[in-house]
Amino acid sequence: MTELPQDLVELAKEVLTCARAQGKRLVTAESCTGGLIASFLTAVPGSSDVIEGGFVTYSNDAKTRLLGVPRDALATHGAVSDIVASAMAEGALAQVQAQMAVSVTGIAGPGGGGKDKPVGLVFMALAQTDADAVVKRYVFAGTRDDVRRAAVGAALELLLSTLKAEA
Amino acid sequence: MTELPQDLVELAKEVLTCARAQGKRLVTAESCTGGLIASFLTAVPGSSDVIEGGFVTYSNDAKTRLLGVPRDALATHGAVSDIVASAMAEGALAQVQAQMAVSVTGIAGPGGGGKDKPVGLVFMALAQTDADAVVKRYVFAGTRDDVRRAAVGAALELLLSTLKAEA
Repeated sequence: MTELPQDLVELAKEVLTCARAQGKRLVTAESCTGGLIASFLTAVPGSSDVIEGGFVTYSNDAKTRLLGVPRDALATHGAVSDIVASAMAEGALAQVQAQMAVSVTGIAGPGGGGKDKPVGLVFMALAQTDADAVVKRYVFAGTRDDVRRAAVGAALELLLSTLKAEA
Repeated sequence: MTELPQDLVELAKEVLTCARAQGKRLVTAESCTGGLIASFLTAVPGSSDVIEGGFVTYSNDAKTRLLGVPRDALATHGAVSDIVASAMAEGALAQVQAQMAVSVTGIAGPGGGGKDKPVGLVFMALAQTDADAVVKRYVFAGTRDDVRRAAVGAALELLLSTLKAEA
């Protein structure tokens, strides 16, 4: 069978090694990446000592029910927004026994884009139990698959850089 | 970038087409596949009209907190058991607005296997709002990646055969 792209698996390994060294457990909250971030992290043998779990909140209703994202925020700012990315990460952290959460919400395409929010627009947030959430904004190019993979890479990089800064 | 294996993407497309035709929304509850089933389903453009969301419940605590899997069941039967697979699928269905849930729990390896529960052992369950849950047991061969991909394929087949039987 085709393997997962090796560069992302290597990045996932680094994230797990750093988190393990710091005794931190991770949780994911994914919209447009649809479980891909969790897939890459759990592709690594032994990941269960770091990965607590994850959420795929594809609908707005799931974002509210599972992660407590306020319906007002979804209505006012839209699902693809810094506010919602932040609320998703904070919400994931509140649900399970983990110290770091990463969230992703974006427009993977090919449909769903507009003038203000083009296809490829992705917001991601990193929340920690002992620090304020950090939110990043990206516009990735390419196909639906390209945008999703680029978002996975950026999310893993965000986890890794945060972990390294705290090592 | 490397694409997802095309045979599984094609299978995911068929699942989405059948579910859409029946007006059914789906939710996933994954342990050893770690988000891969949700990833394949959401790789298909337009999947948001069928996919409600999903859970990656990697730890036992996450299985209980997020899906309501009884701690007794985990202690008595183990996380990799028909009882827990069934409870995961039923729990996912109870959390969101969906009509079908598929769950997977297994031992992807290379570690974690034993005499009674070898590496490659996977239980999966399909739960529906209007029918009893169905549980399947498999023993897949190969690497961690092979076992995970085989489990994704079997879960998509289980969704598809159930949907086709009800069409």
